[in-house]
Amino acid sequence: MKLKRSSRLVDMTEYLLRHPHQVISLSYFSERYESAKSSISEDLTIIKENFESQEIGRLQTQAGATGGVCYMPSMGCEEAEQLLERLQEQMTRKERILPGGYLYMTDILGKPDYVNAIGRLIASVFINEKLDAIMTMETKGIPLAYAVATQRSVPVVVVRRSSKVTEGSTVSINYISGSSKRIQTMVLPRRSLKEHARVLIVDDFMKAGGTMKGMINLVEEFGARVAGMAVLVEKKEERPKLVDHYVSLLKLSILEQQDTLTIENGNVYEWLSESASLAVKEQP
Amino acid sequence: MKLKRSSRLVDMTEYLLRHPHQVISLSYFSERYESAKSSISEDLTIIKENFESQEIGRLQTQAGATGGVCYMPSMGCEEAEQLLERLQEQMTRKERILPGGYLYMTDILGKPDYVNAIGRLIASVFINEKLDAIMTMETKGIPLAYAVATQRSVPVVVVRRSSKVTEGSTVSINYISGSSKRIQTMVLPRRSLKEHARVLIVDDFMKAGGTMKGMINLVEEFGARVAGMAVLVEKKEERPKLVDHYVSLLKLSILEQQDTLTIENGNVYEWLSESASLAVKEQP
Repeated sequence: MKLKRSSRLVDMTEYLLRHPHQVISLSYFSERYESAKSSISEDLTIIKENFESQEIGRLQTQAGATGGVCYMPSMGCEEAEQLLERLQEQMTRKERILPGGYLYMTDILGKPDYVNAIGRLIASVFINEKLDAIMTMETKGIPLAYAVATQRSVPVVVVRRSSKVTEGSTVSINYISGSSKRIQTMVLPRRSLKEHARVLIVDDFMKAGGTMKGMINLVEEFGARVAGMAVLVEKKEERPKLVDHYVSLLKLSILEQQDTLTIENGNVYEWLSESASLAVKEQP
Repeated sequence: MKLKRSSRLVDMTEYLLRHPHQVISLSYFSERYESAKSSISEDLTIIKENFESQEIGRLQTQAGATGGVCYMPSMGCEEAEQLLERLQEQMTRKERILPGGYLYMTDILGKPDYVNAIGRLIASVFINEKLDAIMTMETKGIPLAYAVATQRSVPVVVVRRSSKVTEGSTVSINYISGSSKRIQTMVLPRRSLKEHARVLIVDDFMKAGGTMKGMINLVEEFGARVAGMAVLVEKKEERPKLVDHYVSLLKLSILEQQDTLTIENGNVYEWLSESASLAVKEQP
């Protein structure tokens, strides 16, 4: 189809947004629109400037015969701040405190606009990391894991508490829950992860970190590697966590006796500014 | 920010894609770009033509003081056909047959590009329906439900097999599994669904339809209404299904004794052409 610049811009924007972290050759666009590569390059410059000024991601172009363009979604600090503020507002209600020191988040995690924004923020933090899979524990982490995976175009693997008939043969490990000190089991289908795969672990909630530690062990059991860890909410506990070097978006304190909770920002800003400064260094 | 048309087109496309089924006033865009509403209207005409020729959705504009624009994602028949063909290719391997007549789909459902495309196709079928929530059963249906919900900007409610500490008070019902004839339980947090809400039920797999029938009962228990049902794969069974008037993307036959399976298209095309013809009728 022969298109004018204005139509090309609409179509390319849509195409790039739907194919994040995939290198698309200039020839592909050039053939798709029956336009010269030089025109395509100009289009991409306009899109790149817009994406960068709106802080919705980087557009990396590679020159040469194998040249192409790759859209890497990210979230600007301002949007991240607004998102965390809105989440804090939503979460800071004492009716949300559940027995056992948990927080009722089902309604928030049910909303795709929150979930997808959280996914974009987590993807931002790991924008410079090579990732082959996103891992999570059933069931609340699943939507967050898919939201990150969508931004990265990599598959999700879901760890379960017991093996299911619909999953074929599985690998299982035992781990000790950090809070309850009970022995628990987690399983993953044998075909889920390849050796040396780089895995980002994503979860909704972290208390002592026992589940996260279990997932690290499971990744290692497959000969794969943990490329990063991110949780939406970490709970402030008196004891140190069983894992470190993880990203948290929010930090929760509950005083159960007094029925009060406070929520503050986690460490995500430190991580964000680190990944942004890395990007600046890498660019010529 | 004052933007040129080319930059406005990029930004508006991105904005519309990220806010499906939400009415955005022309004033919003007009203020955002410091441009006259007449320019915005021209931009929208370009975007509308492109979305329609690419069959990625409708752009409905409402005139007048409360006027605005609403992007309704859909999938063209050609893209739908390609998607179903690719899914069939992926699924038609006898190693996928699991004990009990199930199909191993974990790898396919792990890939966000498949999941999001399936979500877009299901959203297409129900493009003319008013929807307030997407319901699914844990755990395999969850990514599909979020993929549909993202296209519709409505929340997801996840039915569970047992109540969890992190969900607060719940409503539970018993139902009889269509295949195993056993009594099973399903639960949903009390705060999940409002009375009169219009619910689309989405699931990955349907054998006899017992789970689907249970979810219908659960929706009614909340005084809500089933606006539609969609499954990725329905299994051909000798007995008639326990539910009818559902959408299926694929239809599976397994001959367990001979270790063979065949997959054909479900009834989704009939539904798609019906929703498309409705749209034509509604337009002036």
